[in-house]
Order: sequence, then structure tokens, then C-alpha cells
Amino acid sequence: MSQDSYVEEITPQGEDFSRWYLDVVQKAQLADYAPVRGCVAVRPYGFAIWEAMQSNLDERFKATGVENAYFPLLIPESIFKKEAEHIEGFAPEAPWVTHAGEEELSEKLVIRPSSETIIGTMFSRWIQSYRDLPMVLNQWCSVVRWEKATYPFIRTSEFLWQEGHTCHRDENDARKRARMMVGVYRDFLQEELAVPVIDGIKSEREKFAGAVDTFTVEALMGDGRGLQAGTSHYLGDGFARVMDIKFLDEDGEHKLVHQTSWGVSHRLIGAVIMVHGDDRGLRLPPKIAPKQAVIVPIYRQDSRSEVLQQANRLQQELAEARISVHLDDREGYTPGWKFNDWEMRGVPIRLELGPRDMEDEQVVLVRRDTGDKESVSWSGLAQKTTDVLDDISENMFKQALDFREKNTRAVDEMSQLKEIISGPRGYVLAGWCGDAGCEAQVKEKTGATIQCIPFDEAKYSEQACLCCGSESGRTVVFARPY
Amino acid sequence: MSQDSYVEEITPQGEDFSRWYLDVVQKAQLADYAPVRGCVAVRPYGFAIWEAMQSNLDERFKATGVENAYFPLLIPESIFKKEAEHIEGFAPEAPWVTHAGEEELSEKLVIRPSSETIIGTMFSRWIQSYRDLPMVLNQWCSVVRWEKATYPFIRTSEFLWQEGHTCHRDENDARKRARMMVGVYRDFLQEELAVPVIDGIKSEREKFAGAVDTFTVEALMGDGRGLQAGTSHYLGDGFARVMDIKFLDEDGEHKLVHQTSWGVSHRLIGAVIMVHGDDRGLRLPPKIAPKQAVIVPIYRQDSRSEVLQQANRLQQELAEARISVHLDDREGYTPGWKFNDWEMRGVPIRLELGPRDMEDEQVVLVRRDTGDKESVSWSGLAQKTTDVLDDISENMFKQALDFREKNTRAVDEMSQLKEIISGPRGYVLAGWCGDAGCEAQVKEKTGATIQCIPFDEAKYSEQACLCCGSESGRTVVFARPY
Repeated sequence: MSQDSYVEEITPQGEDFSRWYLDVVQKAQLADYAPVRGCVAVRPYGFAIWEAMQSNLDERFKATGVENAYFPLLIPESIFKKEAEHIEGFAPEAPWVTHAGEEELSEKLVIRPSSETIIGTMFSRWIQSYRDLPMVLNQWCSVVRWEKATYPFIRTSEFLWQEGHTCHRDENDARKRARMMVGVYRDFLQEELAVPVIDGIKSEREKFAGAVDTFTVEALMGDGRGLQAGTSHYLGDGFARVMDIKFLDEDGEHKLVHQTSWGVSHRLIGAVIMVHGDDRGLRLPPKIAPKQAVIVPIYRQDSRSEVLQQANRLQQELAEARISVHLDDREGYTPGWKFNDWEMRGVPIRLELGPRDMEDEQVVLVRRDTGDKESVSWSGLAQKTTDVLDDISENMFKQALDFREKNTRAVDEMSQLKEIISGPRGYVLAGWCGDAGCEAQVKEKTGATIQCIPFDEAKYSEQACLCCGSESGRTVVFARPY
Repeated sequence: MSQDSYVEEITPQGEDFSRWYLDVVQKAQLADYAPVRGCVAVRPYGFAIWEAMQSNLDERFKATGVENAYFPLLIPESIFKKEAEHIEGFAPEAPWVTHAGEEELSEKLVIRPSSETIIGTMFSRWIQSYRDLPMVLNQWCSVVRWEKATYPFIRTSEFLWQEGHTCHRDENDARKRARMMVGVYRDFLQEELAVPVIDGIKSEREKFAGAVDTFTVEALMGDGRGLQAGTSHYLGDGFARVMDIKFLDEDGEHKLVHQTSWGVSHRLIGAVIMVHGDDRGLRLPPKIAPKQAVIVPIYRQDSRSEVLQQANRLQQELAEARISVHLDDREGYTPGWKFNDWEMRGVPIRLELGPRDMEDEQVVLVRRDTGDKESVSWSGLAQKTTDVLDDISENMFKQALDFREKNTRAVDEMSQLKEIISGPRGYVLAGWCGDAGCEAQVKEKTGATIQCIPFDEAKYSEQACLCCGSESGRTVVFARPY
């Protein structure tokens, strides 16, 4: 394989963004197509990113009082069908188990597309008194939705996710939890993934099947399309009513609980690829990079053992400073090939150690985010690497925010929206009166949907409706979504 | 609720061990029956035990070079049916997905009962050269086997587990990995769960569907029945042959890989309950107890704030010493009720803090394993608690080992085996010639099966066959299994 073969194999973003994305997923060994329609196998490198996300999110969840649990994968039809809007939303893509061995089941079972109904059934057994509230549970699992058009990580028939499900004494407490969790997602995306988001509320048309309100965090991808990165739903007492989830309140009355549910999925890996990646491949934010730094030794046969010995020493020092570092001592590959390989795989920092560096007791530190190189002395390497990792996190966030700001345009007219969506894309800020008919017309005429009605009312103020001209509108975020 | 109501609700072990087990699972809120045949919902307390097991095992796996990944839940029939013995073993209990929404699928899909076939398909794409070997992957997931008779944690239609799958250059390397992993399981059970095991090899009759050899760790439960706690399989090149998993070796030849697979499941929670539990409920080994110590404050209204303040201080000190400690400051429950509650839930150490303790600047430390009480001064509490936790781990292992030794009997004749299996049960050491016919006869006549042929040949030496009298036999472990 030639030195540059990896890079040559990746389609440039400008040529075909979608092809570029699929190339990165495959060449960086994040995932591979499985012989099951619309499903991928998540490979170790991709899964290590998911594990890093999981452990960070799980800690954030637990700090707010979340407890993990696990509920059955299979839901009997009679339970799944209890909530009318929910079933309507999920039934068309529901995979049904009808047989076990040769035997036909007396009642068919659906593989969970989301677990409101099965968890609700358990809540109704576990909640008796106001003392049992709030009940705040979460599960890490996979769910299945038989999607027509699939795309690795972004939309697959099976996907890894977490789903939180909570019960509360009243609407106020439930809404607080739903908003709290969308805040956890926002902070996680911005602080750990370096992905800027807009948080807000979904329109009626875009909300979750069975929710009263859906809150969301939205991110702009590198091709100017929008991605729903995480959602949190206030469910009201609709599921509680059909699942009979009641509690005896202090006043002696039996009342329905108010519920929330919220989730993010391995779609976040897709978001990281599409927000940060470039023509050389993946760029991973340091805080969730399985390998934060890689040491590439450069030697001739006579300097080999000396260079490798020093590389090992440096690896150990960095590991002691809690940096996740990898020494690439593979034989049979040139340093140049290794440089390309690790750039393509998005490792934030490369440390080159060659014969001249040995003389000067230094390494060459190369940043993946900027390509900048500098020489760093061995003695200060751990501290310097830590500092540069922090700087890369900040810089990647800033780059992504700059990109989003450059690709956010305010318009007053439908024709402008249409032009942007069919041209450069990006976020488009425009007024909307709140009417579903206007929303549908805009979508039909422009291909854009409402990503969210932003929470930040100071920034996104009143504005006449793009469609009907009503003055009662407020500024919302349009985009062509994934 | 009366002070002793919890304890009264648990059936004594001596009266009905199985009833006792089900009581503990429910009352300690480890799991609850779900409205899906043979499935349970794992409640937060039970799941926290699983999380502790997971994180410890995962670290042990990774220390041996294991990488985690994730493979599809659903396996197309054509792939699932490739390995004849495998399909024969799993087909009778396989749940089939036949429809998505209203649409009938062109090929039905099985929910994985184990993932050799789907992972093998991916291996065949990912492995080209000897440089790609060994490939050592693992996934944490759930699998489904439509079992007829189910029992929470021990045998359920869906269960949580991990499954490792590896590919190697030759038989020797694969066998080394299979033996290594059964060693990891052995150490984990003994060191973390305080469960003594016998490791050995399964008979042909008892081995995994598709394996050449199955290695196992076996544990004796409190009712004298045996439990297979974990298995590791050397698969030979059987799956590689049908899945076409080949590599180009250094000598230029294309060769089939040799494979292993290995797994433990949430059955380990059942093992912990049945090895350590007593008539007061659960007893959790300190290293996987979600709460290692609980502080129960005892106060009258006038001393309340003072006692709670000190309890909080102690909690913080213990937490800083990396002890997982919980302060039970619930109102409306008596201290006595709390004592019973935490004993039932198996918390290793209870710390009582009452008015007299406040005067003497001490707490009363009560061990769950022995019931022993002693006063400990505040100043030395963190160190003392750490030491006692270690001592409890050791003592629980010793108690379990004593129990096993008392309940292990050597016999020469079938009638003796039968008498023990229908009476006190336990492990029975007897000779077996290796013939499947003899094994089947013993099972039919006594209800006992061979748990394993122990690795430790020094301890389990040659012995004439219990059934046919052949002198070529060696000592194996019989029991009535779960």
C-alpha cells in the first residue's frame, strides 16, 4: 500500500459529502455493513467512542439521581397498543416476533422501538405512594425500527441508545426533569463532543409519538444539514392513564403520575464525524477519543532499540498523567503511512520521535485540528500534551461554532428559504406563526422543516410568519434535516 | 408495617429453598416478573449489582487484550443455519421475526440466542492476513432463548450477558485463549463474588452446540444443587469452515482460523443470592455490593439535627475513603425497620449512630456476614470499615468453601450417588469412564449430571467408572444441576 493510499481512498467532502461520510465510517473502522437489512456492526474503534460517551453521560445522569435498570426487549401486542398515538407512530416500522421454534405464539411480540409501554406496565406495579416519587430510571440498550432508508449511525434499523423514563407527582416536577435532561444533553454535546447545539422545543408535527412536548438539541452538520441530536419528552399523564400508573397522594387521593422520557443514540457518533471531519478523515474531540495521542517512532535499524526504548518511557509518562496514549510500534509500515492512518482515524495529537529528536531530547507534536507542529522537550511533554488537548477541545468547538454562524441566515420570504435550502443549506432563521398548515406548506415548497423553536427568546424574538405573514409568529430554526 | 414484617415475609430456606429464592429476588427489589413469558425486569438494585460485575469483568477482559464491539440483534435464517450442530442446539427455542409492520419479510430473522454466526460473517470480511490475528472481541448485550421453565436470573427467556468471540492462527493459540478466559471467570468469581468454583471441562453431552471443547466454572448453591456459572468454548475451525473465515499465513497459504467463544450472564446474580443468602435475605460480597455500608441514625426529636449532622460527616469521610456508603435518613421508619431492610438487601456493614454513640464519639458497626457488633471510634472509622469489608470478603469465601467441602462426598457406587442426590444433595465425586452411554444411564437412574471433569488432575485422580466399572475412569463431579 502506498504512503498516501488511505487519504486517496477518501472521497473529498466537496465532491460528495455523503460518500465522504461512508468512506470515513468504513476506512476508520468505525462500523461495517452487516448482512441484515439496515443494520451495521459497530467495530471496536467505533464502539470505544460509544463507550467513552456512555461513561461520561452515565455519570452526568447519576449526578441528577438517575438509576439504571433493564426491561424486556419484547413487548406483547396488547401492551404495545395501549397508547393510540404511540402505536400509530411506531407500528409501520415495528418488527414482530410470531414464532418460537416451530410453535406459533398465542400473542405476537414487538421488538421495542422505545420502551414507554413495557416500562409503564412495571411502573404501575412499583408505584403506590407519593413516597415512591419521583421514580427516575434509565436503560442502555438497543432498539429496532424497520427504517426504509438507512445510513450508518444516523438512521439504522437497530441502534444503540439510552432511554430514560421517569414518573412524577405533578406536571411541574415532570417538566422540570424533561428540561433538565435536555440541558444535560446540551452540556454533554458542547463540553465533551465540542458540538454546538441549539436547544428548543419541537413543533406538534415533529414531536414524539405520545408526547405533550418534545424538547430537543439540534446540531448543524458539515454539509449544512440539520441533525436532531437528542430529545426529551414531557409525556403528561397520557401513558399513565392507559397503563394505570397511580399513586396515593398525601391528601389521600389516588392520582395519575406525570411522566417524561428522553434519549440519545449512537447517532452522536455520526454527529461527531459530520461536524468535525475533514478531507483527511475523522477528527475526534479529545474528551471522547479512545486514543488521545499516538507516538510514532522513526528509526533506522541501528537506532531502533534506542528510539523504541525512549518511546516506551514517554508512553508510560503520558499514561501516568491520565492521557490515553498509544505507541504505534507496528513493523512493516512506514512512518508516513502511520501518520496518514492516525490522521484518518482522528487521533487529536501525534508525537513523532526520530533520531534527531533523540539527540535534542524532544518530540515533534502535531495537532490534528490545525496541523500545527512544534518541538516539545521530553521533560515537559505530559503537561504540554494535557494543555494542548484542552486547547484542541476549545478550538474544535470554536471552529464548529464559527461554521454554524457562517451558515446561519435570517430570511423573511419563502423564496429566500428555498434558495438557501437548495443551495448552500445551513440553518435558516425565519418567522412561523405556529400553525401546522403553514409548517406543512413550507416543507412542501422548500424541503425545509422546523428543527426547533429555540428556548432562547432573547436571541430568537418575534417575527412575522414566513408562510401566512401573520404578525403572531416567532423566529424558529429551519433546515433540511437528516 | 411491623418492625419484623420484612423478615417474616421471607420463606425460611429450610422450609422451601426455591420459595426463599423467589422471595429474596422480589423483596430485595432485584427483579420483578414482566408481562412477557419468562422475562423479568431487572430493577435498579439488581442492575447495580450487574453494573458492578460488568465493570470489574470488563477491566479484567481488557487487561488480556479484549476489545468491545456490537453486532446486530437479528440474524437472517440463512446465516443462522450454516453450522449444523449450532442450529440443532438453538432452533427449538429460537424466536423468529417474520413481519415488519404489516409487511412479511422475504427472509425471516432470528433474535440472537448467541452470536457465533453473525459475528463469524463479519470476521470473514475483517480478517485477511495473519497480521489481523488474533482478533479478540466481546459484546455486552442480551440474548433470547425461549426457555420452557424459567427462574429469575438463572434461566429466563431473555438474559443479559457478555459474549467473547475470538479468531486465532492455530489450535494452540485458540485453546490458550479459551483456557485463559475460564481462568478469568474463576478468579472473578472467587475474588470478587466470594464464590468458590471448580473449573474443568464439560462432557460431550453437556458441551455447547458447535464447540469442540467447553470449559466451565461450576459452583455449588445453598440447596446443594450445582450451577454452571460461566463457560468458554474452543470452537475449532468448524464455524470458520462454514463462514469462510480464512487468512493468508506467512507461508503464503490460505488457512482457516481457529475460534473461541465465552460468556457469563446475569445468572451470576442468582449464584450470589444462592451461595451467600440466609434466612434474613441477601448477603452481598463487599466487592460488588452497590452499597457497602449503610449508616442508620437513631434519634429522638431533640437530638435529630445533631445526630444527622454527624451522620453526614461520617458519610463524607467514608466516601472519601472510596467506600460506597449510604445514609438512611428516611423519615417515618423506625431504626429497627431499617436494620431489617438493609439486612434483607444484603448490605455488608451497618453503622448505627445513636445518642449514646454521640457522647462516646463512636458508632456501632454490625457485620452482615456474622452479625457481630462492635463499637468503633469516629476517628478510626474509615480505616476500620475498609478492613472489615476485606475481612467480610474473605470470610464469605471461606464460609462458602466450608459449605461446599461439607457437601462434597466421594462414592464408588451408583446407589450411593442416588441416595445423596435425592437426599442432602451437594457435589458427588465418582469415577466415569468417558462413555456417553454410562453418563446417560447415571442421569436416568439418579438425576445427577456431570458438572465437569476437573482440570486439577492431582486432586481428582483416576477412579473406576461408577456405571460400567471400567478401570479407565477418572474422578468427575456429579450434581443435580440448575
